[in-house]
Amino acid sequence: MNQKINVAILGATGSVGQKFVELLTDHPWFQIAELAASERSSGKKYAEAVNWIMQTPLDQEIGEMVVKEAKANLSSKLVFSALDSSVAGEIETEFANGGYTVISNARNHRFDDDVPLMIPEVNPEHLEMLKNQKSTGTIITNPNCSTIGMVLALKPLHDAFGIDTINVVTMQAISGSGYPGLPSLDILENVLPFISGEEDKMETEPIKILSSIENGKLKSPDIKISAQCNRVPVIDGHTECVQIKFKTKPTKEDIIKVWKEFRSEPQLLNLPSAPKLPIHYFDNPKYPQPKLHRNLENGMAVSVGRLRECSLFDYKFVVLSHNTVRGAAGGTILIAELLKAKNLLSEI
Amino acid sequence: MNQKINVAILGATGSVGQKFVELLTDHPWFQIAELAASERSSGKKYAEAVNWIMQTPLDQEIGEMVVKEAKANLSSKLVFSALDSSVAGEIETEFANGGYTVISNARNHRFDDDVPLMIPEVNPEHLEMLKNQKSTGTIITNPNCSTIGMVLALKPLHDAFGIDTINVVTMQAISGSGYPGLPSLDILENVLPFISGEEDKMETEPIKILSSIENGKLKSPDIKISAQCNRVPVIDGHTECVQIKFKTKPTKEDIIKVWKEFRSEPQLLNLPSAPKLPIHYFDNPKYPQPKLHRNLENGMAVSVGRLRECSLFDYKFVVLSHNTVRGAAGGTILIAELLKAKNLLSEI
Amino acid sequence: MNQKINVAILGATGSVGQKFVELLTDHPWFQIAELAASERSSGKKYAEAVNWIMQTPLDQEIGEMVVKEAKANLSSKLVFSALDSSVAGEIETEFANGGYTVISNARNHRFDDDVPLMIPEVNPEHLEMLKNQKSTGTIITNPNCSTIGMVLALKPLHDAFGIDTINVVTMQAISGSGYPGLPSLDILENVLPFISGEEDKMETEPIKILSSIENGKLKSPDIKISAQCNRVPVIDGHTECVQIKFKTKPTKEDIIKVWKEFRSEPQLLNLPSAPKLPIHYFDNPKYPQPKLHRNLENGMAVSVGRLRECSLFDYKFVVLSHNTVRGAAGGTILIAELLKAKNLLSEI
Amino acid sequence: MNQKINVAILGATGSVGQKFVELLTDHPWFQIAELAASERSSGKKYAEAVNWIMQTPLDQEIGEMVVKEAKANLSSKLVFSALDSSVAGEIETEFANGGYTVISNARNHRFDDDVPLMIPEVNPEHLEMLKNQKSTGTIITNPNCSTIGMVLALKPLHDAFGIDTINVVTMQAISGSGYPGLPSLDILENVLPFISGEEDKMETEPIKILSSIENGKLKSPDIKISAQCNRVPVIDGHTECVQIKFKTKPTKEDIIKVWKEFRSEPQLLNLPSAPKLPIHYFDNPKYPQPKLHRNLENGMAVSVGRLRECSLFDYKFVVLSHNTVRGAAGGTILIAELLKAKNLLSEI
Repeated sequence: MNQKINVAILGATGSVGQKFVELLTDHPWFQIAELAASERSSGKKYAEAVNWIMQTPLDQEIGEMVVKEAKANLSSKLVFSALDSSVAGEIETEFANGGYTVISNARNHRFDDDVPLMIPEVNPEHLEMLKNQKSTGTIITNPNCSTIGMVLALKPLHDAFGIDTINVVTMQAISGSGYPGLPSLDILENVLPFISGEEDKMETEPIKILSSIENGKLKSPDIKISAQCNRVPVIDGHTECVQIKFKTKPTKEDIIKVWKEFRSEPQLLNLPSAPKLPIHYFDNPKYPQPKLHRNLENGMAVSVGRLRECSLFDYKFVVLSHNTVRGAAGGTILIAELLKAKNLLSEI
Repeated sequence: MNQKINVAILGATGSVGQKFVELLTDHPWFQIAELAASERSSGKKYAEAVNWIMQTPLDQEIGEMVVKEAKANLSSKLVFSALDSSVAGEIETEFANGGYTVISNARNHRFDDDVPLMIPEVNPEHLEMLKNQKSTGTIITNPNCSTIGMVLALKPLHDAFGIDTINVVTMQAISGSGYPGLPSLDILENVLPFISGEEDKMETEPIKILSSIENGKLKSPDIKISAQCNRVPVIDGHTECVQIKFKTKPTKEDIIKVWKEFRSEPQLLNLPSAPKLPIHYFDNPKYPQPKLHRNLENGMAVSVGRLRECSLFDYKFVVLSHNTVRGAAGGTILIAELLKAKNLLSEI
Repeated sequence: MNQKINVAILGATGSVGQKFVELLTDHPWFQIAELAASERSSGKKYAEAVNWIMQTPLDQEIGEMVVKEAKANLSSKLVFSALDSSVAGEIETEFANGGYTVISNARNHRFDDDVPLMIPEVNPEHLEMLKNQKSTGTIITNPNCSTIGMVLALKPLHDAFGIDTINVVTMQAISGSGYPGLPSLDILENVLPFISGEEDKMETEPIKILSSIENGKLKSPDIKISAQCNRVPVIDGHTECVQIKFKTKPTKEDIIKVWKEFRSEPQLLNLPSAPKLPIHYFDNPKYPQPKLHRNLENGMAVSVGRLRECSLFDYKFVVLSHNTVRGAAGGTILIAELLKAKNLLSEI
Repeated sequence: MNQKINVAILGATGSVGQKFVELLTDHPWFQIAELAASERSSGKKYAEAVNWIMQTPLDQEIGEMVVKEAKANLSSKLVFSALDSSVAGEIETEFANGGYTVISNARNHRFDDDVPLMIPEVNPEHLEMLKNQKSTGTIITNPNCSTIGMVLALKPLHDAFGIDTINVVTMQAISGSGYPGLPSLDILENVLPFISGEEDKMETEPIKILSSIENGKLKSPDIKISAQCNRVPVIDGHTECVQIKFKTKPTKEDIIKVWKEFRSEPQLLNLPSAPKLPIHYFDNPKYPQPKLHRNLENGMAVSVGRLRECSLFDYKFVVLSHNTVRGAAGGTILIAELLKAKNLLSEI
């Protein structure tokens, strides 16, 4: 590759926007060329517009960049959207109509008919849907943070044994609520048994993601799902207790083997952000834990453990993934890398 | 009542032992007469033997009491046991054989054939089992902290509609692991997806507690249970996500009505530690929360909320209870109050 | 007292406002008659207008009260102000001009010439300043939360030995920043070494509070102060490391004796919210701790410990106090009780 | 360098020992050849002997190494000691007498006459003291974690302006207490105002470290110090509020310039673990914070901020450093690198 592709980040000052900035600084394929945000921030230097909360320091050059308004007149044709869902729908449509390729972390377009809801290791073949998009540009969406870790762990099991039922209870990190997000008085030394809209996302998104595709049309799998979502005093890393009933019940060893051997397109294409092992399996009954395992493979791997038989379903286990990396900015960047590797950004 | 009953606390220096001391100081019916612990502490003043971690100051007079060894030569005939399970089994048997009435928070005797595993609001009729105990004394056990809150919330539903299946995922407080218990480096900003032995307790204890009794013999109900137990950075209060399938599915309003109207023997007998309302139901979808609701009715009530239909079971909801009060020392004291009110301590 | 005095709470929906509601529910002398807040809340039932974050449940009757606007047309003549400082100055003046007695937790009027800045145990004689107030009503202010604990611990030492220099470093609880206040991502597993305006308050307020009064005029003591203020992940309770140089250096025993024997007007008048012992001294080198001691005497006592000689000053020690009780709503209510006991509310 | 130097880690299973393992895996100059611990662990595979609590996974090859006993019969001549102070004194002496070069994080030999107490950027010239050591081997010690950050920030100021007085209050992370270390019930949502022995270390170690050296003998500077040490619920990173009086008071700009320009031998020698900038100065009044800045330059830099004039001393500021990296294992490794670069390991 001779030259990096210029990219813009929409919603660059928010917490997911900052994570995009952090992960795209020094990216081998992409170059942050434009930072865009609301009218309030536009015109300011990024370092002044942002309340930087990442744990690595803000790159000085990027801090000097002047923030633009999130309007479809940017020069970069590849656009990462970290916009708030209150505005993302309309703005992203505008960009798509303007010929941009928009890869979005917002929920607004996730269930649009011709928009892929994509985890690159899980449903890369859904890129075929893009042919049906009528705009001159393109929208691809990244699923909800709590969906991604679970579905990534389930994908190879679904392929091998067929999943019938999923029951999940989550213990989610506070970074998932953005910044300023959750007040400290609400969560310090506490559990919140409710996250608005989250359970619905976890009960519907996996169906679309795990759909097969025939002639560019999705065909839903017959999977029943129940989700219960909680917030706990953890900074990063969603922990999820999952129970599964299969079409055909495998042995415990079968499951572990399938997890350990799972590789998919991002691994085969050697994408820069792809984890070498998408799924790390642990025997130690105390694992996985957010503090210990969220950063495995730069936060792009998911960790699973405590696999055991369940008297009500077939098996139960625990899955952990980094919600703002694999579950948000990192996953979205991986989609862009997939597009690039498959020559779907050739005109950019 | 003319005179308070003298009681002894075994394992008085541990964290549950301290909670017994806190709750029995100024108790209207019982008087702390003896504090007993391991050989290491015996002979010392209690204030010196204990590393007091309760949030109310240690009563000065009690601090001056000299700790005795936990041997069956105490003068108090009513004994509360907060002994560690590594020693509780043998010592409690010794006391029972010595004619003492032992009410224990330890797990050792919970599944003994003639020993009630008791939540006073749930199975007071199990006291009938005591007739079968062969020792001159008596042993009654208090269930595990994570069991109690759930079963208390389920009891009136089981009576009204019949429970078929229980699925539960817990988020448990650190005080459940005793003192020193969990190292801070293990739990600060973290979740532990494993608590040794806990899931087994939650899957077996409810069966015994919810058994009917015929001629002094227990008859197990036909209920299937699966439990997944996690530790979270909360000081007190176990939060549990529960899913239920009924023999006969009630409406949501039926369930709420049954919860709100539930009263049992401790309420009818007006026992000093009994909550006026054993079950507090909340409509607010953000409730219950450990920080806000664990201390309701001095920590003796359980709180439930987020009741909603479930696509896999019939209903799902969240239950919260104070693990060291209702789930340990407070529940154990309530058993003693029940005995007293039913004249089963008459010889003491 | 035949009848309770009707009171209004201004800013009743905020976190300090809620603490006022909690502490005034069932108050022996005062009766919550009106709750007032911003235009946005006025007209709603309190239970609907407020996001209740107290750990005791909201009283049902009070929840049914309709919130009024914070304007000087209320019927209650005794008014507790928990208004935000962005609006408190003007509104409180309006109430004072309207003949109300305003006791305020806001900072706006603290340094007005004729307005007492009062800790009832420390400078009750400053009520003399009220004679100079020109409005038909009255304003009295409660100091900053971090000031109160320290000055209460220093007052008897200043009286006995004369304080020359104070050096203080604070570790303050998050409840001091109100609600929603501090974002959880800023403080979970973190320390913030800055609290806007706080150091200035701690360096100036003690001077006014410890002033002597001559003919209704304050005369400042000659005390030098330096403060450094930090926020730590604690819910309630400010911990402060204090160093003191005296005019005349006492012995350690002298200091402890003075602390233990300290009683002041609120104790002599037996005010309902007054702690029996304003200052609790601890020998245990691990004490005081916010989790263990903030609630002593219903949160109205201060705890001191770790008294030892200092090579740079004379002595150093640690002081702890409950920032939203003693440091805010509780302290403000105690001022009103002092007024009542001294017949300064006779016309109300 | 043709070949890496074989090193042994004593006390390899403890928390500092684990940090040594983490930092020495893939070290460019040193190769972990032997892991030693107490008799209880010796003979086991490291992966089985250790309760690994680092946030990066244990290297598999190192996990396979068999733990040896911490006795002076190891083959590696360069030895890092993370031994507990209860045994470190004797064992380290034994190794020194056996001809080993021991670089220790334990406190036992810190004040031995001929043993350097070293921060490589601060007092590299103290290596001259080694000539006086009578054993065939060598002992060099790393200071206490809370001392290092402060003295590193003060060193260039002392050189430039002369320090007269230091007053410090710390807010220290829990990892400083080792593993299992602090019970979670002691520190979650709490502050501990006492760390055994810590204040004494902070008041004495800086004097030795900042001593000048004449003919191999140390000459103490005339600096007065007072320290107050607290534990707060932070995992890694000690935050310290420091006040300084100088021999000659500089301007604020002078101080910032000196901090920004400070480089020392580790930087000049380009040592692998040396931070490019030993001291990072921040203008933002909210900085430094442990969560944001502890990992700067792989945890080897110290961060300073909030520099402002002080009415009691000359200036006050906040310093932050990573207590288990710069303050323990990382600092100790940097000493070894200094030895190597100065050809003081030539016989190894």
